[in-house]
Amino acid sequence: MANIQKVAKKAGVSVATVSRVLNNPDVVTLKTRTKVEQAIHELNYEPSALGRNLRTSRSRLLLVLLPSISNPFYTEIINGIEDTAIEEGYNILLCETDSNPERENIYFNMVKNRLAEGIISMDPTVNKKTLTDLAKDYPIVQCSEYDEDGTICYVSIDNELAAYHAVRHLIKLGHEKIALINSDEKFLYARERYRGFQKAMEEFELPIRPEWILNMENVKFEDGQQAMKGLLKQEVRPTAVFAVSDVLAIGALKELNINQIRVPEDIALVGFDKIVFSNMTHPTLTTISQPMYKMGSISANMLINKIKGKAVESVILEHELVIREST
Amino acid sequence: MANIQKVAKKAGVSVATVSRVLNNPDVVTLKTRTKVEQAIHELNYEPSALGRNLRTSRSRLLLVLLPSISNPFYTEIINGIEDTAIEEGYNILLCETDSNPERENIYFNMVKNRLAEGIISMDPTVNKKTLTDLAKDYPIVQCSEYDEDGTICYVSIDNELAAYHAVRHLIKLGHEKIALINSDEKFLYARERYRGFQKAMEEFELPIRPEWILNMENVKFEDGQQAMKGLLKQEVRPTAVFAVSDVLAIGALKELNINQIRVPEDIALVGFDKIVFSNMTHPTLTTISQPMYKMGSISANMLINKIKGKAVESVILEHELVIREST
Repeated sequence: MANIQKVAKKAGVSVATVSRVLNNPDVVTLKTRTKVEQAIHELNYEPSALGRNLRTSRSRLLLVLLPSISNPFYTEIINGIEDTAIEEGYNILLCETDSNPERENIYFNMVKNRLAEGIISMDPTVNKKTLTDLAKDYPIVQCSEYDEDGTICYVSIDNELAAYHAVRHLIKLGHEKIALINSDEKFLYARERYRGFQKAMEEFELPIRPEWILNMENVKFEDGQQAMKGLLKQEVRPTAVFAVSDVLAIGALKELNINQIRVPEDIALVGFDKIVFSNMTHPTLTTISQPMYKMGSISANMLINKIKGKAVESVILEHELVIREST
Repeated sequence: MANIQKVAKKAGVSVATVSRVLNNPDVVTLKTRTKVEQAIHELNYEPSALGRNLRTSRSRLLLVLLPSISNPFYTEIINGIEDTAIEEGYNILLCETDSNPERENIYFNMVKNRLAEGIISMDPTVNKKTLTDLAKDYPIVQCSEYDEDGTICYVSIDNELAAYHAVRHLIKLGHEKIALINSDEKFLYARERYRGFQKAMEEFELPIRPEWILNMENVKFEDGQQAMKGLLKQEVRPTAVFAVSDVLAIGALKELNINQIRVPEDIALVGFDKIVFSNMTHPTLTTISQPMYKMGSISANMLINKIKGKAVESVILEHELVIREST
């Protein structure tokens, strides 16, 4: 392959001269420039962007950290990030961390090493301390998940209020026996949505039965199905279930369908996120709509502003209860 | 921020000496090395990987090009790619191309510029000529979609045979009026699956009615729903439908559920891919299972072998007909 040395040799000039032609051609005589340009052309030499980036520190790449691309919740956010980034002349790279700190570190290093200009983190389990330290020197924003008492700017919704609305909807329909399928409370959103559930139950003086609060380790269909299996085995069954993610709710619905339990007549069901598939189930799923595209778009704008050195502020967006057939 | 100049100044040595300490410490005296290392430590200087990459040309990053992360078909493939890549000491970056040649070019340039070591392309609309040219100089493999008369190695399934099996399954159940919901025939898989459909119909001497062959521009739920709407409007309705993607089939099923058309009694339905959702629908979907995880894993191995300069060969993997409630 052609390299700068071969170009220099072919043109009969020094490597430094070739470099000047590439980076600062005005200081080179026309005659030398022509010779070098001809050698570049003949050797089909492509100057390394790595080298250029090193000098200019501009990769125009943004990293998007997400725990897993399997959850469709992230898809719509990414569309928002992507459209905005491209409009502003940036490209994005998706980094699936699998919630693994070692893999997070590899992506953090890409920013430290100027291979990317900033990070949008959607990873709830990201190493907080590392991220906060990194955010002191590099542009970083958080989207959806964030650090309660952190210093990093974020875009999110009011998870507690949204969960409160979901549960109040069930209570207003006459339900008193309400179960919660939650994810792991190591996640901020899980803790906040639990608080919203608790607040609604307490406000209407309904009992919270510990055996009806299920915390699942993962947020996959199987986990939702597993949770519903557990609920159906109990002596006293709930008449309504709030699942903190559509994926969990759809898994739970599958188990209800298998057991020919009518939804919403026997058990009503509310999900969270309004993923596209939540409208493809039978019955369709009542859910909390997060403005995912907008969350993505705003977080991209926020990051690009940070890169440009502008001041940015965290944003809490509105959610919406979407009532469908499952309640 | 600390840079190599500041380190040199603090240590009282030249920039070249600092560079030697970083890259070739054995040639530096212990005394000088200690001074430099202390300055690096005090200034919290982190040598640029960009610089290191420039010298070693090893980014240990693989690019995965995919048209859209919205289709869950890709998710499982990516899991396979990722696990294998990580095992081999590589990380992957997901590049959503949106089937846009300009965006494809940006990612191609990352490889040309040594920011990444190779590409796994799953993008059916990728610019063929550019990709083929690039593959002459850089490690590239194709996964799932490939070029029929191309020179780039690939991993795929026998799409024609798989479609033939799906349609034969419907015929053996007694169906004679079979419709096809296909995607755009600019995609190789769409052309191949049409050929499989055609082959089965011809073998059993069944008529192919042009009004029952629908080519959708996109592969989203809405497209499947739209296609089924069209089929239901026709004077003579088919009794069975083969959709070339689970996403299309699930959209079609939604429309059947809305119109209270019984599946499989009134209309039977077969999908393709065996995405996780296909088992969450009501009824569950009969589908062709592609070994997606394995496809990902093999294509990652293939690419890494190519990077190492080893010879590689294209692979066609086995598919499987998964019979569920919709037929």
